[in-house]
Amino acid sequence: HQTPEDEEDAWQDDEYFGNYGTLRLHLEMLSDKPRTETYRRVILGNSAALRGKVVMDLGCGTGVISLFCARLAQPAAVYAVEASSMAKHTEELVRQNGCEEVVTVFQDRAENLTLPGKVDVLVSEWMGNCLLFEYMVESVLLARDRWLKEGGVMWPSSACLTVVPCQAFSDYRQKMEFWEKPYGLDFTYLQSLAQKEFLSQPKFSHLLLPEDCLSAPADVITLDMVTIQVSDLERLNGGFSFNVDKSGVFHGFTVWFSAHFQSLEEDGPTQELNTGPFSEITHWKQTLFMLDTPVTVEEGDIIVGSICLQRNPVWRRHLSITFSWNINSTEDKKVQTKCFPMWR
Amino acid sequence: HQTPEDEEDAWQDDEYFGNYGTLRLHLEMLSDKPRTETYRRVILGNSAALRGKVVMDLGCGTGVISLFCARLAQPAAVYAVEASSMAKHTEELVRQNGCEEVVTVFQDRAENLTLPGKVDVLVSEWMGNCLLFEYMVESVLLARDRWLKEGGVMWPSSACLTVVPCQAFSDYRQKMEFWEKPYGLDFTYLQSLAQKEFLSQPKFSHLLLPEDCLSAPADVITLDMVTIQVSDLERLNGGFSFNVDKSGVFHGFTVWFSAHFQSLEEDGPTQELNTGPFSEITHWKQTLFMLDTPVTVEEGDIIVGSICLQRNPVWRRHLSITFSWNINSTEDKKVQTKCFPMWR
Ligand SMILES: [Ca+2]
Ligand SMILES: [Ca+2]
Repeated sequence: HQTPEDEEDAWQDDEYFGNYGTLRLHLEMLSDKPRTETYRRVILGNSAALRGKVVMDLGCGTGVISLFCARLAQPAAVYAVEASSMAKHTEELVRQNGCEEVVTVFQDRAENLTLPGKVDVLVSEWMGNCLLFEYMVESVLLARDRWLKEGGVMWPSSACLTVVPCQAFSDYRQKMEFWEKPYGLDFTYLQSLAQKEFLSQPKFSHLLLPEDCLSAPADVITLDMVTIQVSDLERLNGGFSFNVDKSGVFHGFTVWFSAHFQSLEEDGPTQELNTGPFSEITHWKQTLFMLDTPVTVEEGDIIVGSICLQRNPVWRRHLSITFSWNINSTEDKKVQTKCFPMWR
Repeated sequence: HQTPEDEEDAWQDDEYFGNYGTLRLHLEMLSDKPRTETYRRVILGNSAALRGKVVMDLGCGTGVISLFCARLAQPAAVYAVEASSMAKHTEELVRQNGCEEVVTVFQDRAENLTLPGKVDVLVSEWMGNCLLFEYMVESVLLARDRWLKEGGVMWPSSACLTVVPCQAFSDYRQKMEFWEKPYGLDFTYLQSLAQKEFLSQPKFSHLLLPEDCLSAPADVITLDMVTIQVSDLERLNGGFSFNVDKSGVFHGFTVWFSAHFQSLEEDGPTQELNTGPFSEITHWKQTLFMLDTPVTVEEGDIIVGSICLQRNPVWRRHLSITFSWNINSTEDKKVQTKCFPMWR
């Protein structure tokens, strides 16, 4: 599977949308309360301003966000768009919840979509691991350019990638130190293999403990959902400079994202979904990128560097993430770099 | 993937042995202390009797059992057999641990194996989920028939499948009841889909709490590793009669296995690896089979029935497990049955 057979295959859409045709992922997302309740709270908090508005819910899945709109506000219409075969069930759920006057389901992909007209609000839950993985965001931007009215609102209106240098003793112990003397045997020979197999790709579903942060986290990349262009997604860069605020072992970087929902009303409060270690756990959890070799750091050390998210030019839902860093930058210390494919 | 393309494909050996060519599964198995330490304890407890014996370790993986033999006893020779590409690393591990005089690695499949001679002991960790899944046991029996001396010892010498009727409130809540009123919406329409998707196959990696057992467990099938034949594996049946010892909700059956290691010395103690809910957690955990509809049961109720493990005639590493049961057997109550593919 190194080369896609044609352009469609490069998006792996059969696999991608196939996964959303069964309940497993929908149950996982719906069971994620911080996620789902953020959308509910955003709609409830904007219910007055939503009156008479036209809303598009892109990638609506079971239609939960569309149903929130119809039940908690009085929009003129909600266009619930879902490309996977879940759409036929969504239609039935809309009826069962008495929302068929307001919510219309469109089983279509963003690129092929034809709607009755433009929309005032485009709401979507498109965020993946490390924010961008699977690049559903591209579909959201296509839909925006085609169907959002001039001055319309995007929900989320911005999204932000956050990084922190961290400890990960238990991961390092279980995957690398384990080989040192299991059951009295010497398996150190396998450590180079283990490094290649376990540390070369990020660990999804990591749960970072706040006490394993070696510094305050830094927002490294921000996407303005109104202005960002599809072409900007090819390569995103961000810099960081972390002040180590306690001595410890620098095992790697942990990454997560936050999404921000502007108010429809001027000066209304912005709402936030934060998937980091200081917020309630979401189904995204966090993503851990481990260094090949841990480094002891002291309070007061400075870790300066950058992160680069490079979209795979062939496999369009994949990317690689490269970290470059340098501790207490001096001329004689050279910059370290490590590139993590995710997944290709 | 409904029909294998040829007979080899029916064993899915590229996938099966491919998985054992990387470290992930080996790390999982080695990190399983109850498992690995049982083998260590068996060898240590038989170290005197192992002196001068020839041992075969089939599917040796990283060679941990072979190394235990060489380091904790004084066998004449250990033949460490591994079909996957891990074998080349195993050879190096044997050298690193100074056991190359005793342990010889053979990268070969059981069917094609040529050894210098017959063996006194055939040790293997062949057990899968529900004991039989993946049917590595067939390779063990082939190796036994070809290479075990008359009167030789099998480790494990017997293995047993155990069943208990149980509660599984949290699984039922998360997968079925969830749809009743999530976020104030009515998603009951999805329950039939959820039943089909989540309850039709067993749940591997279940952790049964002792207090969720509705009765004492029953051993339903026992394999005598010296006498059982490959053809016996096609269909294995066992009966049960459970006395419900506390009122509760009968959500399904939980299944696990134990493996028994006879002593090489007459009257020596048999050692046991038990993967059930009353023993330390292993990487196999337990396997949960959920009924379509939970049934309230009372103390004193009797659940009578049977379990049948039917090997898939096409996909040779797969099976289906059928439960038949009847509560407080009376003429007017008909027998319930449910068949679970695992996985095909
Ligand atoms: Ca998502
Ligand atoms: Ca096994």
